Amino acid sequence: MKEDEITGWFRQQRQLSSAAIPIGIGDDMAQIALDHGSSVLITTDMLLDGTHFDLATATLEQAGYKSMATSLSDCAAMATIPLAAVVAVGLPHGWGGRQLQELHAGVVRAADKYRCPLVGGDITSWKTDGRFAVCVSMLSKPGDKPPVRRSGAQAGDVICVTGSLGGSGRRRHLEFEPRVNEALQIVQIADLHAMMDISDGLSTDLNRICHQSRVGALVEASAVPMSQDAKAQTDPLDAALNEGEDFELLFTLSPEQWDTLHRRWDHPVPITRVGRITNTGRMEIKMPDGQVLDLKPGGYDHLAD
Amino acid sequence: MKEDEITGWFRQQRQLSSAAIPIGIGDDMAQIALDHGSSVLITTDMLLDGTHFDLATATLEQAGYKSMATSLSDCAAMATIPLAAVVAVGLPHGWGGRQLQELHAGVVRAADKYRCPLVGGDITSWKTDGRFAVCVSMLSKPGDKPPVRRSGAQAGDVICVTGSLGGSGRRRHLEFEPRVNEALQIVQIADLHAMMDISDGLSTDLNRICHQSRVGALVEASAVPMSQDAKAQTDPLDAALNEGEDFELLFTLSPEQWDTLHRRWDHPVPITRVGRITNTGRMEIKMPDGQVLDLKPGGYDHLAD
Repeated sequence: MKEDEITGWFRQQRQLSSAAIPIGIGDDMAQIALDHGSSVLITTDMLLDGTHFDLATATLEQAGYKSMATSLSDCAAMATIPLAAVVAVGLPHGWGGRQLQELHAGVVRAADKYRCPLVGGDITSWKTDGRFAVCVSMLSKPGDKPPVRRSGAQAGDVICVTGSLGGSGRRRHLEFEPRVNEALQIVQIADLHAMMDISDGLSTDLNRICHQSRVGALVEASAVPMSQDAKAQTDPLDAALNEGEDFELLFTLSPEQWDTLHRRWDHPVPITRVGRITNTGRMEIKMPDGQVLDLKPGGYDHLAD
Repeated sequence: MKEDEITGWFRQQRQLSSAAIPIGIGDDMAQIALDHGSSVLITTDMLLDGTHFDLATATLEQAGYKSMATSLSDCAAMATIPLAAVVAVGLPHGWGGRQLQELHAGVVRAADKYRCPLVGGDITSWKTDGRFAVCVSMLSKPGDKPPVRRSGAQAGDVICVTGSLGGSGRRRHLEFEPRVNEALQIVQIADLHAMMDISDGLSTDLNRICHQSRVGALVEASAVPMSQDAKAQTDPLDAALNEGEDFELLFTLSPEQWDTLHRRWDHPVPITRVGRITNTGRMEIKMPDGQVLDLKPGGYDHLAD
């Protein structure tokens, strides 16, 4: 069973009331309805030493920053406004105040920058062996527009990404800027049909949008924006398609809305059209030589062998 | 640095806006203000294999139940109504759908019982070595009464606990009932000054109420309700005072309100008066022979050597 299969299984186990839980399992955040027409969204992200960062080379300050930035990227993925975060840690035996203060420095660097205060947490420790784990849970609220979901892509939509992709594992994954402000600006300019952040690689995350929207996609290989770190690799296209932790935005919108967005977007972070949504029901990629191949979800899967 | 010292240090690092964050770091849950006078509360709890349960003897179903029940107990600790939960996991290498389904069974057992749906989560895995970690984050909302904090205890207050204490590590810590309904019923009957749940032992948690309320306390040793599991130990009083994970409620209220509560309480879970809040600024315990001793916080500390 892969990650998406078990997530689908979880979703099927309980029918959530759509009045109480407008958005449930399977999106970047869940939305919970409150009194007086208010609502709040929540995301949780567990980061593990040796998987999401390696404390042999990364600092705890960087781990703290990344843990917050990962959840902030989920807020961005739905174009919502971060409100507050809580941070729980599992500490290796013998760690104490010094390590927590270093971690805290990274947490508040992200918290201050994106105005998402740290409001609580939990400190626990492994009794014997056990490596460092940190879990950030974050609340956000809708902006002027409703949260953008994964399930609204339509055949004919333009597929866009922010920034450039691939090679994030070299260094960028520790210091990326979550696209919180960009997402809120994009939805001010254009109506989006679907959005998420690219955490497991473009091919895997686009497949999630296709699956949840019951559509297909055709990606233009020559249009995919490759990062400098991707270009330094032997197969830059593979890096841009399949490596994880870009934390860029992936979204779809009608060609007319794309024209508007393209014309009016003057932010330093570029937006690139990388393909279009199709009604084929499957993902394809058009190679620079004109050949059209199947595009397999090739990104990171925590449950893969 | 002990847990409470580093928590205090975290609290001092950033001044939270009391309009945006009515309750911040240091209580059982943080409260976040939303539009239209709504608010939501959040708690997070990390549970580690080998610390909070031992998968050599406990099942993953029990681990799932306990992780939810721990956060539900935080909702109870402030007399708030559970709304929704997200669950993040760090899986040992090689785990997959089967283990997640077993965990899920325990999560939804608690979720269904306390009407707190699972709305999302995060699945991650250790690349090499690494033990099972699970982190539940839970939202609640205030009931008819405002959330009860730790900081409102007043000299002269009666100190009460629900249920019986000590020896939870033998078995009860895996199957305890969070006092969600009891807490909501208690605040319907009486006005409380302070409340929390006993997760780290009565002596340690009462010290937190005293510290945050700037008061002292005198506990009557003969009044402390001891569980059957505590009585089976060589020092039952020590077990009842200092062992953790009772997950009972600890609260204070005026003698008049106590009279009302005592008279009207007909719930099967008992409430016991165990002492009173003093203006001595320190915690004391009156032994059965009449001697008054200092009561030291002797419960579990994740940062102790």
